[in-house]
Amino acid sequence: MLCTTELGHGSNVQGLETTATFDPQTGEFDIHSPTLTSSKWWPGGLGKVSTHAVVYARLITGGQDHGVHGFIVQLRSLDDHLPLPGITVGDIGMKFGSGAYNSMDNGLLRFDHLRIPRNQMLMRVSQVTKEGKFVQSDVPRQLVYGTMVYVRQTIVSDASRALARAVCIATRYSAVRRQFGSQNGGPETQVIDYKTQQSRLFPLLASAYAFRFVGEWLKWLYTDVTQRLQANDFSTLPEAHACTAGLKSMTTSVTADAIEECRKLCGGHGYLSNSGLPELFAVYIPTCTYEGDNVVLLLQVARFLMKTVSQLGSGKKPVGTTAYIGRAEHLMQCCCEVEMAEDWIKPSVILEAFEARAVRMSVSCAKSLEKFSNPEDGFAELSADLLEAALAHCQLIVVSKFLEKLQHDIPGKGVKRQLEILCNVYALHLLHKHLGDFIATGCITPKQGALANEQLRLLYAQVRPNAIALVDSFNYTDHYLGSILGCYDGNVYQKLYQEAWKDPLNETVVPDGYLEYIRPILKQHIRTARL
Amino acid sequence: MLCTTELGHGSNVQGLETTATFDPQTGEFDIHSPTLTSSKWWPGGLGKVSTHAVVYARLITGGQDHGVHGFIVQLRSLDDHLPLPGITVGDIGMKFGSGAYNSMDNGLLRFDHLRIPRNQMLMRVSQVTKEGKFVQSDVPRQLVYGTMVYVRQTIVSDASRALARAVCIATRYSAVRRQFGSQNGGPETQVIDYKTQQSRLFPLLASAYAFRFVGEWLKWLYTDVTQRLQANDFSTLPEAHACTAGLKSMTTSVTADAIEECRKLCGGHGYLSNSGLPELFAVYIPTCTYEGDNVVLLLQVARFLMKTVSQLGSGKKPVGTTAYIGRAEHLMQCCCEVEMAEDWIKPSVILEAFEARAVRMSVSCAKSLEKFSNPEDGFAELSADLLEAALAHCQLIVVSKFLEKLQHDIPGKGVKRQLEILCNVYALHLLHKHLGDFIATGCITPKQGALANEQLRLLYAQVRPNAIALVDSFNYTDHYLGSILGCYDGNVYQKLYQEAWKDPLNETVVPDGYLEYIRPILKQHIRTARL
Ligand SMILES: Cc1cc2nc3c(=O)[nH]c(=O)nc-3n(C[C@H](O)[C@H](O)[C@H](O)COP(=O)(O)OP(=O)(O)OC[C@H]3O[C@@H](n4cnc5c(N)ncnc54)[C@H](O)[C@@H]3O)c2cc1C
Ligand SMILES: Cc1cc2nc3c(=O)[nH]c(=O)nc-3n(C[C@H](O)[C@H](O)[C@H](O)COP(=O)(O)OP(=O)(O)OC[C@H]3O[C@@H](n4cnc5c(N)ncnc54)[C@H](O)[C@@H]3O)c2cc1C
Repeated sequence: MLCTTELGHGSNVQGLETTATFDPQTGEFDIHSPTLTSSKWWPGGLGKVSTHAVVYARLITGGQDHGVHGFIVQLRSLDDHLPLPGITVGDIGMKFGSGAYNSMDNGLLRFDHLRIPRNQMLMRVSQVTKEGKFVQSDVPRQLVYGTMVYVRQTIVSDASRALARAVCIATRYSAVRRQFGSQNGGPETQVIDYKTQQSRLFPLLASAYAFRFVGEWLKWLYTDVTQRLQANDFSTLPEAHACTAGLKSMTTSVTADAIEECRKLCGGHGYLSNSGLPELFAVYIPTCTYEGDNVVLLLQVARFLMKTVSQLGSGKKPVGTTAYIGRAEHLMQCCCEVEMAEDWIKPSVILEAFEARAVRMSVSCAKSLEKFSNPEDGFAELSADLLEAALAHCQLIVVSKFLEKLQHDIPGKGVKRQLEILCNVYALHLLHKHLGDFIATGCITPKQGALANEQLRLLYAQVRPNAIALVDSFNYTDHYLGSILGCYDGNVYQKLYQEAWKDPLNETVVPDGYLEYIRPILKQHIRTARL
Repeated sequence: MLCTTELGHGSNVQGLETTATFDPQTGEFDIHSPTLTSSKWWPGGLGKVSTHAVVYARLITGGQDHGVHGFIVQLRSLDDHLPLPGITVGDIGMKFGSGAYNSMDNGLLRFDHLRIPRNQMLMRVSQVTKEGKFVQSDVPRQLVYGTMVYVRQTIVSDASRALARAVCIATRYSAVRRQFGSQNGGPETQVIDYKTQQSRLFPLLASAYAFRFVGEWLKWLYTDVTQRLQANDFSTLPEAHACTAGLKSMTTSVTADAIEECRKLCGGHGYLSNSGLPELFAVYIPTCTYEGDNVVLLLQVARFLMKTVSQLGSGKKPVGTTAYIGRAEHLMQCCCEVEMAEDWIKPSVILEAFEARAVRMSVSCAKSLEKFSNPEDGFAELSADLLEAALAHCQLIVVSKFLEKLQHDIPGKGVKRQLEILCNVYALHLLHKHLGDFIATGCITPKQGALANEQLRLLYAQVRPNAIALVDSFNYTDHYLGSILGCYDGNVYQKLYQEAWKDPLNETVVPDGYLEYIRPILKQHIRTARL
């Protein structure tokens, strides 16, 4: 179990306060929590279950601070599970939601000069000799990025899965739910047929697919990076790192918001626990914070983009997902050729619009940065704009990977056609949402923006007939979905009704507390009323 | 207790299925639940506590259906609280969150031919005579809108309060929390000093104030409407109704999202229950659904706007919050005069930009609607665009009421200046967020959009020094806030640490279940490892 975050530091790992001071006399590290804020805080499973942890602490040798390193520390006895002397450990308390995450014992941990042998330091990158000498190995430090690429890549796939779950529930229920629009006593309209419902739901359905494909591609990226690392080729690592950081941030933020939107799309019944959506939300949202706060990550992406742009003059060619920046000259002055709504479904048109927007936003930020004498001041001052540029870059990646996917064969009759529609929905709903970006940078005209919106409406109509099939194809069992509203057979009302009677409150007809609390109030009211 | 919603119908009240059939023989109504979906579902307090309810049901006399009316129905005996014969009543089950809303017994209720006397029908608007004749009284039906104006007005004020609570927590904690940016071993940067944090937080702070002022104005509006109704003047009622419907929708949607954003602004610790934000969110969000689903409400506003625009030719003058539509001719072709960033803080400039945007979006929708031979088809087809036009209208109302507020004297040295800054933040952050609307309708140029963004950055810097004072002024006690992160004295870390130890999981050092579950697994692993 990795034990990094402290009460006072999460995002800034380099600011951790726990110390590991080497004592050459005994050949041991003295692990200590010098302040209240240095208490370890949050690691999952740490509070009540873990017997050992990899604790990150500042390494100190000969009075010198060498920054944060990892140490294997035994926390509890293997015989009776009691914390070892020098260790204070416990749970940090209740968290969001009524279920899942509260079954995890996120822990707090303090050390009072705990001693561990020297060989329990993780020494791949740096070593401490018996004599207490600090030595850097020649293992490249960037290796740690490889792990980050791996972890964040799994988070993107998880985002797709969580989003697909929410969308599956909301889509199925939207087909079951009827409200308004009965004509001559006929059945009312299925709410999935309302254009507003479609304009809220179908982009999320498209996003679930988009994130799945970009997640698959990230798996490939990780393999590629790993192979290169083994061959001592670090050239693509910064780009791969920025790419996964950005996609982790973007896909988890979208998914968190989308789960709640899916709940709202279910009207009142979405608020019931047995809709499955409240707990899905409560368990999902910390993903926006852990493994890198989403804003902090996007700022890292922005930093990488600014570096890439600033090196354009030097002839350094941007690689991978930033390759388009190498075509800045063209993209800064190209004109979108859309004249009719259906021009907007051409892959080349979509791609160029997203590339042009992303490059223009980055270049515009880079130009504004030049006005500052201290680049760090500039970066801080313009960071809100930089976030937007980074987001545009991430959206481009997802759009382009979706388009790439569609260039390959896709088995199943008509499947490719459906995916093309979803890809266009994904791209055009983003274009509509960020219309200001596209128009203000001159990538498209207001008229072309209106045409994109018109095309989007047509696309929704094309998604509609296959919407249920598109969520059925996620192939989630009712058990996995855990949602009455999303049940496969659509028998929602009967299940809601049956489930209600299982509520413990319904075990008695007259509720506990009636005699003590409710009755006296009722009797008093009646008397007052009669006076 | 009002008992309207059924398993099958919430938004569409006219579609309720419960029947109240008059029997002239006995002079009674027969209240019945003919279908599963006609089960009453959701009314608060209905499940276990209520003894009586006002039940909405379809009135049927002589085989004719007269639509939905209210009936006073006794549900439980006043002696032993047992449900009366013909009544099935219970709780619908668990809801979102771990606390508050689950202490409410939202109920389900079914009737099996329950008989109630004729005089238990609410007969102000329509009557049923002893003989079973259905008679409409001359009391105007619009009166019911008066109540809606009242209820929704209180919801807007509540939105402001909930938002202020979340913002107070996030602002105080952002001043306590330090992360990164330590120079020469000095303290790290308070996260409230990061421009990204400011650009996420300060617009929410400004919104809390904006909603408060529009809420106060709505109180006045309700008084005004009530006085007019008493004088039989119904002229302003539709406008007042549309206005409150729109503001209920807009302010509650923003507040729901904002509470979660405030939680994210607190990083990992925001996910702890004792941050107060999880439960605030869980309890707040159904406000977006009850008393009118927010999308359904905005569509009503859009309908009213389309009617207002279409009547422009006929010389009918738009009143109240739609008065600006009467100046459509000017607003359709006016040009924004901003040349420098600081031009954007002129009230007249802001107001005209928001009016022009709103009117142009409405007129553009109205023109598109004309292309449909059946206006209802057009409305359905374009409803996603109509939502956006309605939102633009609602945002204009809030901006204009904030500006109006600033035209009056405001006590307190420098208070007015602070509110002016917040008002500008409110307006310009919306302009930035909806830049596409403003530019695409030609209300402002891309260059002016960039200047607005520049001004917004300056405004954030002006909010910063008073941010804490601006949330302290909400005057919430620690008890009311219920948040460690938001505590007044800022002693966050110590309180978090102390609170953690109160967690029941920490009552034992070795957790329950260690011997049965954890130990066998541990021992097994160790054995495997040694093999
Ligand atoms: C459910 C859950 C499980 C967790 N599990 C583990 C675990 O197993 N092991 C472990 O070690 N940790 C764990 N954590 C901790 C988690 O990794 C941290 O909470 C996370 O890294 C965020 O850091 P923070 O809390 O310090 O946020 P902060 O950095 O304090 O964020 C607060 C605010 O400041 C902003 N901010 C911070 N720095 C900057 C900057 N430079 N520029 C602009 N804005 C900035 C952020 O965007 C945010 O809005 C867990 C957390 C949660 C919620
Ligand atoms: C916590 C809570 C407390 C409640 N308390 C009470 C109470 O005390 N008494 C009571 O009577 N009721 C109560 N309700 C019920 C509440 O009033 C309804 O849930 C609410 O009116 C929404 O209706 P619905 O559930 O039918 O949503 P639906 O109308 O089924 O909404 C589902 C989806 O369809 C969309 N939709 C519906 N109609 C249209 C349309 N015409 N055009 C476009 N889109 C449409 C909606 O936007 C939504 O996305 C409560 C609900 C909750 C969650």
